[in-house]
Amino acid sequence: MTGEKAQSPIGIFDSGVGGLTVMRRLIQAMPEENMVYFGDTARVPYGNKSQETIIHYTRQIIRFLQSKSVKAIVIACNTASAFALETARKETDLPIIGVIEPGAVAAVGATRNRKIGIIGTYATINSGAYEAFLNQISPDLIITKKACPLFVPFVEEGIVEDELTDGIIKRYLEEVRNQGVDTLLLGCTHYPLLKPAIEKFMGEEVVCVDPALNTAEKLRAILTENRLLNRLGAGDSPQYEFYVSDYAVRLSEFADRIMPFPIDEIKKIDIESF
Amino acid sequence: MTGEKAQSPIGIFDSGVGGLTVMRRLIQAMPEENMVYFGDTARVPYGNKSQETIIHYTRQIIRFLQSKSVKAIVIACNTASAFALETARKETDLPIIGVIEPGAVAAVGATRNRKIGIIGTYATINSGAYEAFLNQISPDLIITKKACPLFVPFVEEGIVEDELTDGIIKRYLEEVRNQGVDTLLLGCTHYPLLKPAIEKFMGEEVVCVDPALNTAEKLRAILTENRLLNRLGAGDSPQYEFYVSDYAVRLSEFADRIMPFPIDEIKKIDIESF
Repeated sequence: MTGEKAQSPIGIFDSGVGGLTVMRRLIQAMPEENMVYFGDTARVPYGNKSQETIIHYTRQIIRFLQSKSVKAIVIACNTASAFALETARKETDLPIIGVIEPGAVAAVGATRNRKIGIIGTYATINSGAYEAFLNQISPDLIITKKACPLFVPFVEEGIVEDELTDGIIKRYLEEVRNQGVDTLLLGCTHYPLLKPAIEKFMGEEVVCVDPALNTAEKLRAILTENRLLNRLGAGDSPQYEFYVSDYAVRLSEFADRIMPFPIDEIKKIDIESF
Repeated sequence: MTGEKAQSPIGIFDSGVGGLTVMRRLIQAMPEENMVYFGDTARVPYGNKSQETIIHYTRQIIRFLQSKSVKAIVIACNTASAFALETARKETDLPIIGVIEPGAVAAVGATRNRKIGIIGTYATINSGAYEAFLNQISPDLIITKKACPLFVPFVEEGIVEDELTDGIIKRYLEEVRNQGVDTLLLGCTHYPLLKPAIEKFMGEEVVCVDPALNTAEKLRAILTENRLLNRLGAGDSPQYEFYVSDYAVRLSEFADRIMPFPIDEIKKIDIESF
């Protein structure tokens, strides 16, 4: 039998709708869980904002998710994971996981030559969060990192398999490839949508690691350990709710490109009031 | 003699630092005016947000600028001009001008073949604001419009004279060029920084209109009419103050690329509290 708390949803948030790439992995790993997603579309992107601002936004979002009685929180946004996870954990009495540590663990598991590349937004790359975890797990790694701020707008424009995309990938990733990395950490929720184009440029020797996969595994382990894993009754379906801070241009179109099912309803909330 | 109110600053705001291209024109046209600039760097960009959200942000910013005792307000942001100017004028007892109407007037003055192109963010283009003014001034125009959402991130990355920029310009503007426009309205504060590359693609027959020039002329006329034009005393310099809602990544670097003088101090304020 499943306790009442196990039926509570998992809360997931991101600066925008890119975090749906993480939710998709959570659903694959835990198909019986109820979930509440929040995308901060009014204030996206986080990638060039300061730590102070991102902590402020994260606090508001966690208060909103708590109002939905979530049993655990996944910070799907790499930038918020890098800047605000520690503060969020201190201030919140719920299991909270980010994508950085699971991503680092996956990358160390994947590399054979100990050379790892990390790509992400300016904020994520400058934070040093991935290196901190990588060095903690394995101090002998050779790490190359590169901020790729144009990748997100390219993905949001739907320009993903295109000669222009290949051009910007070459511009950003040529020096990373030249370092001989055999593993590339995709340190931004949008980047899995560019994975085929990035793999084409990096070559088949290089493994592109999407932190979402390992994040989903880690969360399942935490829920199992805390006896919080949900079991649906026969014939029941999991409930998914979607919230945003703004009905942004082409929101549903972009969401539908990511999710394996159409999203019926996206509700807008006033995040500044939380 | 200059009255006390004439010495009050002009308030200028934009979704980010792109509006400094407008402030630069205001300084050229009115070198004796004091000015207060606000860039909403915590919530930039506005270009893919909804009208409701942009009106909410504009109200907060106008309250902030009023706290600085401004004598007039320039909405340097095209998206905010398109969505929030009318509401702002109704609610505020100060002269407020946007960039859309002055831009439309300048474009009609520039065209010879009556074919005008308009480029901007999704929000500006979808708002129909430029066409509304253009059609009001001259109903026989043939208008071609195109949202170019990747131009802003390219400019912010400093990729402006580059084969990648030429590629994205060709992608967005080929159909506009093929329409035979002889005038192109640069409907976003960042676009003047791409002007040389856009002119190279569009050809020397096409005039690129930066609405900021005419906006500055219009504001000077309004201040003159209302006896609000400032006269500095001998040896005095105008005062410029710069505020943002976040110390964004590479803020000063980008600002210094636009302004003709280095900016000594940029202050951060909590815009949500206004």
